[in-house]
Amino acid sequence: MSVPFFEKHRATLERALTAIAERGYWSAYPESPSPRNYGEGAVEAGKAAFDALLDKPFDFGDSTAGMRVGAEQSPFGFALGISYPRSDIDQLLAAVGRAQVAWRAAGPQAWVGVCLETLHRINQQSALMAHAVMHTTGQAFMMAFQAGGPHAQDRGLEAVTYAWDEMRRIPGKALWEKPQGKSEPLRMEKHFRIVPRGVGLVIGCCTFPTWNGYTGLFADLATGNAVIVKPHPGAILPLAITVKIARDVLREAGFDPNVVTLVAHAPGDAIVQQLALRPEVKLIDFTGSTANGEWLEANARQAQVFTEKAGVNQIVLDSADDFKGAIRNIAFSLALYTGQMCTAPQNIYVPRGGIDTAEGHLSLDQVGEALAEGVRKLVGDPARAVEVLGAVQNDGVLQRIEGARALGPILLDSQSITHPQFPQATIRTPLIVRLDSAEREKYLHEWFGPIAFVVATDSTAQSLEIAEEAMRNHGGLTLSVYSQRPEVIDRAIEVAGNGGVALSINLTGGVFVNQSAAFSDFHGTGANPAANAALTDAAYVAGRFRVVQHRVHA
Amino acid sequence: MSVPFFEKHRATLERALTAIAERGYWSAYPESPSPRNYGEGAVEAGKAAFDALLDKPFDFGDSTAGMRVGAEQSPFGFALGISYPRSDIDQLLAAVGRAQVAWRAAGPQAWVGVCLETLHRINQQSALMAHAVMHTTGQAFMMAFQAGGPHAQDRGLEAVTYAWDEMRRIPGKALWEKPQGKSEPLRMEKHFRIVPRGVGLVIGCCTFPTWNGYTGLFADLATGNAVIVKPHPGAILPLAITVKIARDVLREAGFDPNVVTLVAHAPGDAIVQQLALRPEVKLIDFTGSTANGEWLEANARQAQVFTEKAGVNQIVLDSADDFKGAIRNIAFSLALYTGQMCTAPQNIYVPRGGIDTAEGHLSLDQVGEALAEGVRKLVGDPARAVEVLGAVQNDGVLQRIEGARALGPILLDSQSITHPQFPQATIRTPLIVRLDSAEREKYLHEWFGPIAFVVATDSTAQSLEIAEEAMRNHGGLTLSVYSQRPEVIDRAIEVAGNGGVALSINLTGGVFVNQSAAFSDFHGTGANPAANAALTDAAYVAGRFRVVQHRVHA
Repeated sequence: MSVPFFEKHRATLERALTAIAERGYWSAYPESPSPRNYGEGAVEAGKAAFDALLDKPFDFGDSTAGMRVGAEQSPFGFALGISYPRSDIDQLLAAVGRAQVAWRAAGPQAWVGVCLETLHRINQQSALMAHAVMHTTGQAFMMAFQAGGPHAQDRGLEAVTYAWDEMRRIPGKALWEKPQGKSEPLRMEKHFRIVPRGVGLVIGCCTFPTWNGYTGLFADLATGNAVIVKPHPGAILPLAITVKIARDVLREAGFDPNVVTLVAHAPGDAIVQQLALRPEVKLIDFTGSTANGEWLEANARQAQVFTEKAGVNQIVLDSADDFKGAIRNIAFSLALYTGQMCTAPQNIYVPRGGIDTAEGHLSLDQVGEALAEGVRKLVGDPARAVEVLGAVQNDGVLQRIEGARALGPILLDSQSITHPQFPQATIRTPLIVRLDSAEREKYLHEWFGPIAFVVATDSTAQSLEIAEEAMRNHGGLTLSVYSQRPEVIDRAIEVAGNGGVALSINLTGGVFVNQSAAFSDFHGTGANPAANAALTDAAYVAGRFRVVQHRVHA
Repeated sequence: MSVPFFEKHRATLERALTAIAERGYWSAYPESPSPRNYGEGAVEAGKAAFDALLDKPFDFGDSTAGMRVGAEQSPFGFALGISYPRSDIDQLLAAVGRAQVAWRAAGPQAWVGVCLETLHRINQQSALMAHAVMHTTGQAFMMAFQAGGPHAQDRGLEAVTYAWDEMRRIPGKALWEKPQGKSEPLRMEKHFRIVPRGVGLVIGCCTFPTWNGYTGLFADLATGNAVIVKPHPGAILPLAITVKIARDVLREAGFDPNVVTLVAHAPGDAIVQQLALRPEVKLIDFTGSTANGEWLEANARQAQVFTEKAGVNQIVLDSADDFKGAIRNIAFSLALYTGQMCTAPQNIYVPRGGIDTAEGHLSLDQVGEALAEGVRKLVGDPARAVEVLGAVQNDGVLQRIEGARALGPILLDSQSITHPQFPQATIRTPLIVRLDSAEREKYLHEWFGPIAFVVATDSTAQSLEIAEEAMRNHGGLTLSVYSQRPEVIDRAIEVAGNGGVALSINLTGGVFVNQSAAFSDFHGTGANPAANAALTDAAYVAGRFRVVQHRVHA
């Protein structure tokens, strides 16, 4: 069945190969939940499917015996009440080991075929996934649908495509014929086989379980590895649904479903550390805190470890043609999903002397006030605001808001909003605090959440200098610059190169610095401390398999 | 100048791209020193050039002031008397840092152009290099010419080709145009830039300084990194010549020659550890002992570390059609360069009950005697023998021969031979010791040198089982099997896959298990403890650069 899956999706794969070669716009999975894309009543059916999962054991289609775990809380204010099997690590790895044998031998077309069919079926469940992502991460529905559904699926497909692109370039067979002057040439027939590394461990986060989880999951699977998915205890459901679909596809393709398994656990459980150090685990993909990421890098030395950790994202304000557009764009970036994004801007550097705009010179105070007013406008209407903000995922965000309020003069305080449909949800608007460039200890680390600093600098030159230093020493995923001066843009490009960070220039319209589009934007670079890999490039996939050859006289 | 270099060698690069796609036979640099390839009197001129370097400071074309080091001894029995500058690490890294700026900015065509021209000029100096390699490693002249010259150059070109192949697939620019229903599409112009990792450190070995050094050196350089070459104190000259040529090319191309530097040091100096832990060093390529390789992997965590370490290479004898051919082939593999090759076979597993051959059944004793006799014949004539054996590189080899003699019954003792031209040289023939499969502690680690064990096993099935276990736990670069039974061959292919080792089947002619041909054989796999990377594949080069993008409204 697996090669038929490959053939079934070959056109998609071919198109995706063109996309990674060009890196212009392309998406395999429609981002709008409209009936035109997903059928009449798809969103409602997704809601019903989600409701049907609540308050019961999650059914993988296997036995549901044994101990169970799970205490997910919707950030919109209710307990999911879903329980998941609690795995014994030794038994799990033994089962994975058995499942691996036939899977490893199946070869690239089978691996990629299973991945493509799994992504296709996940796409069909996008409305269910939207509710699952919404009620674990706190994303508003539309964002949960897009970022948790089609955009995550695109990232998964992108990883499969890079994996296929690397594997297809290894010839299966070669005739080596070496001339020997007047004698007969030496002739060897050589066979090259793609050999997966072993077991991959994918460690999910609580804000983007699918978007950040699918790249590692599908990169591992597409290169023939077995995959153990270890979700964050606060966001198990989206990955449980994913794993269930993958297991269904594996079964249909004639493989042991234990090629893909889920390990759910209670918070504080040491199961991740145990798993990460197992000799069978050869690949680890992690999204989360710097402390945990660095622990994995230092200790899980038997594995290749891909990490996305904390960073400081920055905006350099120098001058603006369309200042209002800039403010609208930045305000949206600060508010989107309550700033709970690894790409959300935090530090906004503004020269003490203010900035030039098409409407004249603006003082530092005026810029700060404009930013505050921009956010106020955006979140002024609660019904609209909650669709941008979503809900606060966890108390850590609230604590950081409280802590940041004490750092300096508050330009805009964070407000609580009541969600019209979910009065129990914790909704918070962005906080903007003014700091001075000298107060580095305050702003040169990550304040994850809806927390922004307007940092007064001596000049744009200093802003860029600090930005580069921050990238080199603390890392970051995004840098944004607003300037009408070509020399500032050139210098920002240089800073981005030195700091290894993706740069957005003069964003004033419908593209936001937080957004990273599959098949076009490289998410992270691997060149600064925020991430040791990019999503997705050849380096992300090429080490997930090895080539083993045999040769014989021809 | 650098882009003209790229254009000058474009046809070679194009042909090399075809070669890595096909991995059949191809070589860019002729392996025969005949005048047809290298001109009349090239070998003699190379000898004269080598003699002219002896007993004086090595001249990099820069200042020769300051402290100097160097105490190389030719294994053929004389001191080279060459001294090299002793670098101060802080000063060196500051100079490299300055040189890096323009080099990083130059881009892939400039980087690859400088590499191709450097390889071309190294090729023209192959006869000089042969003498330099011979009188540092102890390889006989023809091997030093081939393995130290054209074959090493091919490996360097292979690395450049993979690097180019990865870099060329990153588009410089893309138009991202996202449809917005009936509204105007969102349009962003995106620019993608290849950003090198930083400084590469290449740590050379004393047996194959160029062959094992060129892959890392040229992979780093081709991806825009600066490279510090740290040769083994016993084999500095070949890499000093290499570095000098690279610096000449850099200068002509308008770059600061400190993009490529040499750090020579005295044995026991802690300079490697200091260098390896410097934050500027982002890439390390190492060939050497397991202890040193593992130290780098554990400690140089700021860098991506590529290591080739110790391993156990094995031959499984099951049955033979052409037994005499098999014996000739194996005897040559044991004797070649006194077994001082990371690919030389060590353990030869033979069933206790003997093996079937076309000439009838042979007992274990008969097989052992045939192997001993095969080696005796090969090394019987000293004048011919020294051209295969070369000289012993260092006393460690002699100590291991002595240690191995005590392990069990000696089937063939190691003999001293006097070299007709170099009576001071230490020349030793292979030792063959008989062991039992139960004596694992004796044979399951590397005995680097001309040391082989005939290991009596219960059966071929056990031979293969031990071979797999050895690969998994101790690593190895080569596995060889002799069998006329298809099920044994199939099982050996499976074992090679599980153990992550390249397999040679029934080698009886002019191809030897020690030999690994650039553009065709992957040397090492990265899938067992002997090496964490293969020479060369995409995984070896893809992480040596990153992509940094900037985007702006189009």
